Amino acid sequence: MEHDNIKDIYTSPERYSGKQVIVCGWIKNNRVGKAFGFIDLNDGSCFRGIQVVLERESILNYDEISKQNIGAALVVSGKIELTPNMKQPFELKAETVHIEGASTPDFPLQNKRHTPEFLREQAYLRPRTNLFRAVFRVRSEAAFAIHQFFHDRGFVYVHTPLITGSDCEGAGEMFRVTTLDLENPPKTVGGQIDWKQDFFGKSTNLTVSGQLEGETFALAFGKIYTFGPTFRAENSNTTRHAAEFWMIEPEIAFADLNDNMNLAWDMIQYIIQYVLKHCPQEIEFFNQFVDRGLKERLCALAASDYEKITYTEAVLLLKSSNAAFQYPVEWGSDLQTEHERFLTEQIFKKPVFVVDYPKEIKSFYMRLNDDGKTVAAMDLLVPGVGEIIGGSQREERLDLLVERMKELSLEEKDYWWYLNLRRYGGTKHAGFGLGFERIIMYLTGVSNIRDVIPYPRTVKNAEF
Amino acid sequence: MEHDNIKDIYTSPERYSGKQVIVCGWIKNNRVGKAFGFIDLNDGSCFRGIQVVLERESILNYDEISKQNIGAALVVSGKIELTPNMKQPFELKAETVHIEGASTPDFPLQNKRHTPEFLREQAYLRPRTNLFRAVFRVRSEAAFAIHQFFHDRGFVYVHTPLITGSDCEGAGEMFRVTTLDLENPPKTVGGQIDWKQDFFGKSTNLTVSGQLEGETFALAFGKIYTFGPTFRAENSNTTRHAAEFWMIEPEIAFADLNDNMNLAWDMIQYIIQYVLKHCPQEIEFFNQFVDRGLKERLCALAASDYEKITYTEAVLLLKSSNAAFQYPVEWGSDLQTEHERFLTEQIFKKPVFVVDYPKEIKSFYMRLNDDGKTVAAMDLLVPGVGEIIGGSQREERLDLLVERMKELSLEEKDYWWYLNLRRYGGTKHAGFGLGFERIIMYLTGVSNIRDVIPYPRTVKNAEF
Repeated sequence: MEHDNIKDIYTSPERYSGKQVIVCGWIKNNRVGKAFGFIDLNDGSCFRGIQVVLERESILNYDEISKQNIGAALVVSGKIELTPNMKQPFELKAETVHIEGASTPDFPLQNKRHTPEFLREQAYLRPRTNLFRAVFRVRSEAAFAIHQFFHDRGFVYVHTPLITGSDCEGAGEMFRVTTLDLENPPKTVGGQIDWKQDFFGKSTNLTVSGQLEGETFALAFGKIYTFGPTFRAENSNTTRHAAEFWMIEPEIAFADLNDNMNLAWDMIQYIIQYVLKHCPQEIEFFNQFVDRGLKERLCALAASDYEKITYTEAVLLLKSSNAAFQYPVEWGSDLQTEHERFLTEQIFKKPVFVVDYPKEIKSFYMRLNDDGKTVAAMDLLVPGVGEIIGGSQREERLDLLVERMKELSLEEKDYWWYLNLRRYGGTKHAGFGLGFERIIMYLTGVSNIRDVIPYPRTVKNAEF
Repeated sequence: MEHDNIKDIYTSPERYSGKQVIVCGWIKNNRVGKAFGFIDLNDGSCFRGIQVVLERESILNYDEISKQNIGAALVVSGKIELTPNMKQPFELKAETVHIEGASTPDFPLQNKRHTPEFLREQAYLRPRTNLFRAVFRVRSEAAFAIHQFFHDRGFVYVHTPLITGSDCEGAGEMFRVTTLDLENPPKTVGGQIDWKQDFFGKSTNLTVSGQLEGETFALAFGKIYTFGPTFRAENSNTTRHAAEFWMIEPEIAFADLNDNMNLAWDMIQYIIQYVLKHCPQEIEFFNQFVDRGLKERLCALAASDYEKITYTEAVLLLKSSNAAFQYPVEWGSDLQTEHERFLTEQIFKKPVFVVDYPKEIKSFYMRLNDDGKTVAAMDLLVPGVGEIIGGSQREERLDLLVERMKELSLEEKDYWWYLNLRRYGGTKHAGFGLGFERIIMYLTGVSNIRDVIPYPRTVKNAEF
């Protein structure tokens, strides 16, 4: 049915002043007394709700309304009255109120503070709370910002496959996908499960990255990005890991690590500026109730430039800092979050790209540098988090790629098309991955990944 | 590296006239003779390529260039010269040509007609052909159009989960997701596989729809949409079915079937108009080489209005038409594609919403009409295809929903949160699903779903 969005009224209250509107929403608070009363109604169109004013003498079903519980759905028609001296810039003077759907007194989200754990159990209702209304709005806006950023720059959006027949991407443990009757699976002569009889005629898994397929499209369209779900079957029960998450993976042809850094930097700044501009109330809310330093940190990053250092320099700086780290710093070991944060927060006080990591701690497809020891990898470290983006220039030289695969005992035949890409007009190219939940946590200050995904999937949990 | 997009030169050739540019792309055709020659270079930034003109006397590595095979990657710098009387409005007069990556004479995509089957085997290279360059550009633009359509209208984009613990969505066969060692799985006392020991602590599958979760967010934000991958483990080897595909599922609160129809119609028209406007060369190409009636059909639909009839009326019309159908038309049976196309192409000659289907052939969550026999379902039928969108108003009345679930032997405990949604401010609401590949096939005239997905997953096929 035709109705008005509370958001539109906030956008230009003057235009609505004295106008008849219909607002549909859910009760956040019901303070209806004997003769008159107020209802806070939220319709989800924006962070704030609207104050509905009711008078007994003008509302037919006044008594019934007064008994409505939190969570009930109402359709209110009435007039907008400006209230310039009040907290809310306007209220809705009700003329008719239709109870679209009542709520029961045991509605789980009463107006009190709930623990995140309780709200995860109520994941189907939590977007009606202030916190999650804000989180999932920001998630939606950030997703749009990402599409707009790449689209405006001529990138082609590619849907790389989620079910993969290659278990050789090497970026983490994988989930098997099967339709076999596992209580009674078909067997080979040797007595093992005969995966040839599975749905796809072979063993299949859920992908950990669309990068390799993304490269093939970058070498056709020049600039592409993926934005889709990704899976890790790691048994790690932390606040930063989920089994199912969304990832953005751009890939650019005729591009080196510097191009890659510039792209990553432009994208991060674009997302942050976009969300600061389009979700000011949400950001204020997070800043007040979730993370006091959030807004300052986001604004600083949006206005910042970045530093670039090599991994080797980073190791020297960390060693000479004499800071007390839990994990030792040694050339050849991966940087831990504490090291990353020390670099970006203490040493440089700004975002830092660390580049040229030892090849041993990075993936086979990264481009070998002239020193023969490091690869053209990059990690973007930001204050408050540490690594937020990881990427690399890819090895476009067939002989070096094959050599590296041999060192790691990867089978050439499993990568025939990836290798062929280097035979048929292979170019310099580079790309990176951004974990979407990682940036949402950064934008909201929310510290548990379970609270930035609508229905999180983690070890021992696939509810809803 | 900094370089120019061929697309930008086509957009305003005058601005580039006489200007120095650097173009990076792949050879489509090499016609370099003794003294001078031409190379068709495509950089993927737009459908068309650029003609590079070379003269021996001004190009140092002229001989080497003349030997380059199709598919080789070049970096060409030179000046743009307008050629107003030629087929191409400009050419690139080369000054230096760098061979970024050579190609071999056995490059699979020589300049001749290839079968779709052959090109599927070369899926990692096919976006470099005219057809697939066009298809995947349209796919990318259509995806953006969808995000823009919903974003502009205040819809929140929701990422519903792909791994689901409920095997009760009832929309089709599902893929199991597991990390158990299946050669030697843990067993219960009864001797069956102990799914409690699986990664999520229970049996899990890949989702067939995000609708139920989408409803929970619609009842918080008012208007939401999903756009993500969906899976069907159906053993159907047709040109219209894939095991992994992308789906768009909007859901609107305080809305009935008419609101739903209007939304679906606005969306379809928006997508078509957007693609007609932003991909004119691609549409011309499809119209010329894939489907002669395509452009006319798209333009007609974009300018059309729609008809609305009930299922019961549709059955009467089909019966009284005396047309010879392969499948009989009977009240209570689902409409087949031949019936759908007859309605939209022969009877109404325009798009048709068929509404109010018998409840027996529709899902449990659809809202029962007052006749007690039909539900508030809708299918949008369009000429050339048949059904392109299916949706419904959802049953918001708890008692009727529970009753329907009992009839279908669905367990209430499996749907506890879905049912609770009706207890806590449940509202009228509605939504629909659009198979993304379905609309891409409609937009391109391509008749096999394998040719509109970068790396299709179908029965016995999960290559790349």
